[in-house]
Amino acid sequence: MKKLSIADIANHLNVSKSTVSFVLNGRAEEKRISKELVSRVEKFVKEVGYTPSPIARGLRTGKSNIIGLMVESISDPFFANIAKLIESRAYKKGYRILYCSTDNDTEKTRALIEVFRERNVDGYIISPPVGVEDEINALTKAGMPVVLFDRSLPNAGADSVEINNESSAFNATRLLIDQGFTNIAFITFSSLLTQMSGRLSGYKSAIEQEGLGVNVLEIDYNPDEDSMIQTVSNYLSENKHIDAVLFGAVQAGICGLKALTELNLKIPEDVAVISFDDHDVFKLFAPPITAISQPIEEIAGRIISLLLERLNPGQSHAVSQKIILNTEFKLRRSHVNKRFLRKAE
Amino acid sequence: MKKLSIADIANHLNVSKSTVSFVLNGRAEEKRISKELVSRVEKFVKEVGYTPSPIARGLRTGKSNIIGLMVESISDPFFANIAKLIESRAYKKGYRILYCSTDNDTEKTRALIEVFRERNVDGYIISPPVGVEDEINALTKAGMPVVLFDRSLPNAGADSVEINNESSAFNATRLLIDQGFTNIAFITFSSLLTQMSGRLSGYKSAIEQEGLGVNVLEIDYNPDEDSMIQTVSNYLSENKHIDAVLFGAVQAGICGLKALTELNLKIPEDVAVISFDDHDVFKLFAPPITAISQPIEEIAGRIISLLLERLNPGQSHAVSQKIILNTEFKLRRSHVNKRFLRKAE
Repeated sequence: MKKLSIADIANHLNVSKSTVSFVLNGRAEEKRISKELVSRVEKFVKEVGYTPSPIARGLRTGKSNIIGLMVESISDPFFANIAKLIESRAYKKGYRILYCSTDNDTEKTRALIEVFRERNVDGYIISPPVGVEDEINALTKAGMPVVLFDRSLPNAGADSVEINNESSAFNATRLLIDQGFTNIAFITFSSLLTQMSGRLSGYKSAIEQEGLGVNVLEIDYNPDEDSMIQTVSNYLSENKHIDAVLFGAVQAGICGLKALTELNLKIPEDVAVISFDDHDVFKLFAPPITAISQPIEEIAGRIISLLLERLNPGQSHAVSQKIILNTEFKLRRSHVNKRFLRKAE
Repeated sequence: MKKLSIADIANHLNVSKSTVSFVLNGRAEEKRISKELVSRVEKFVKEVGYTPSPIARGLRTGKSNIIGLMVESISDPFFANIAKLIESRAYKKGYRILYCSTDNDTEKTRALIEVFRERNVDGYIISPPVGVEDEINALTKAGMPVVLFDRSLPNAGADSVEINNESSAFNATRLLIDQGFTNIAFITFSSLLTQMSGRLSGYKSAIEQEGLGVNVLEIDYNPDEDSMIQTVSNYLSENKHIDAVLFGAVQAGICGLKALTELNLKIPEDVAVISFDDHDVFKLFAPPITAISQPIEEIAGRIISLLLERLNPGQSHAVSQKIILNTEFKLRRSHVNKRFLRKAE
């Protein structure tokens, strides 16, 4: 049988939703609801076998069992996969997730925090843009559980889950250096966010340690992918000395593969490739692309654990917890220096 | 300066949110709020320069400017891309989108409709699972704008946007027949949903029209991708006569490419391939995969137009509108019969 809501009952009896709610919560006398009306509500509820949903009950108890999840962009495969994992883990714990995308837009993010707040969510999971420290601190000060992920805000006092961006980029660059490449470019999105600046400085440290030249292309993110492919394509055409590329994000890597394909450049013979984040494209490309894989199952698990810790007020816990997870190399064939192999033989 | 919410003001003045709200909406006298309190609220609001947010105003006017979007699974690239497009179009029209995933679970979908309803959304965009006709009809009867997409529910009286699934599958199968393939399989997810049954019957019509054999593999969707790849791999190993495959959905196609790669089968020499939905994997695979591309920009645009029409009550409109859009072949190299080409030369 179809589950009835308080609204359905109110509708059927032609009374207000709050009247029905007061009756079901034993507040009829307090609210001076007539005995006749109380018995009509109770009779109907008994007839239809209504049981209050956990969410409806939550609205009355002040707990909604809903968590607001704000990602940078839901069409980014990294965020879409993380969102899915967070959702299924939260669901097992009795929570439902509502998502939205911030597009890294500070004003939009502020407005969306307000949307969630007015909609009575129990907690927030946010990949924040720059500039929302005040809003996040206001939430945590109000006792709201907040977990940041993918990047952090230096002045926000919230829990966070991140990867070791700097050392991941350092190690990937090192891997290319050890293969004998000497003109290694870093192609990434221009961004002030901590995860992107961490990757950039990891790349630079490894390059400078060897006394090699720094070659950085920062693409302005553009929903029109063709223009980004063109930017990468122009850069590679104008810098023919580049013999290897580290891509700083999955969408940069995919644009890069499209640019390399268009330019008819062979991987790894003409240009070796490593990209941040793993993706089906990298697994299925010929040759398969070596990737810096984020532990997305563990990221999702840690986010939910931190949030649940905050949601159970009895539990003692730290002022804030910052969790840094390791990435894993998926070593495939795109980073191998074939000339170097031959020399070594 | 940070934007204050009604909750912040209430907090600062140590009064209830509804008190603040009543004062700001000129209902203080009606609600018997003391003049002293009214002046405290008004003074503070003036001091901090509070202006009610459009959303907060919406809560009072009964309009939230929020649309609830329910997709099957946000980690499916088709839904992630559609969600993004819907969001950016809605945003331009002054609406914000909150999403959730239904996992095609009827009970979960019912609960999530209730979540949105209690959170005062202005309209719903839903890719529905089977069995939620009653809930959808209850929404439309209550005057709620609802647009279904990707699949329809025969007994739901809501607007919908779909593609011509049956003729798309028919034409794709026809394309393989015209290339001279005679043992064409259809590999898809087992599903009772209209879009999937449409694709299946389009395939069958084309095959039966030619008197060829029907070869159908219906995979049970499983979040563990490896088990689905194994299913496809086993099927292809046990049916070595198959010379071409039409994949019924993007995730089936990606699993299929992984299975073919594992089996070391060459495309199109050993098995020709066409897949529903376009994807970066299909563009970048060697050889590039011929795809039945859905017009996702137009789908998103039509969904938003239908919804806006319903949201402006002055406009006259039909009881319900069902829009069927055409797909487009992205003809690449995976469907070409090389033997057939040679014969034709």
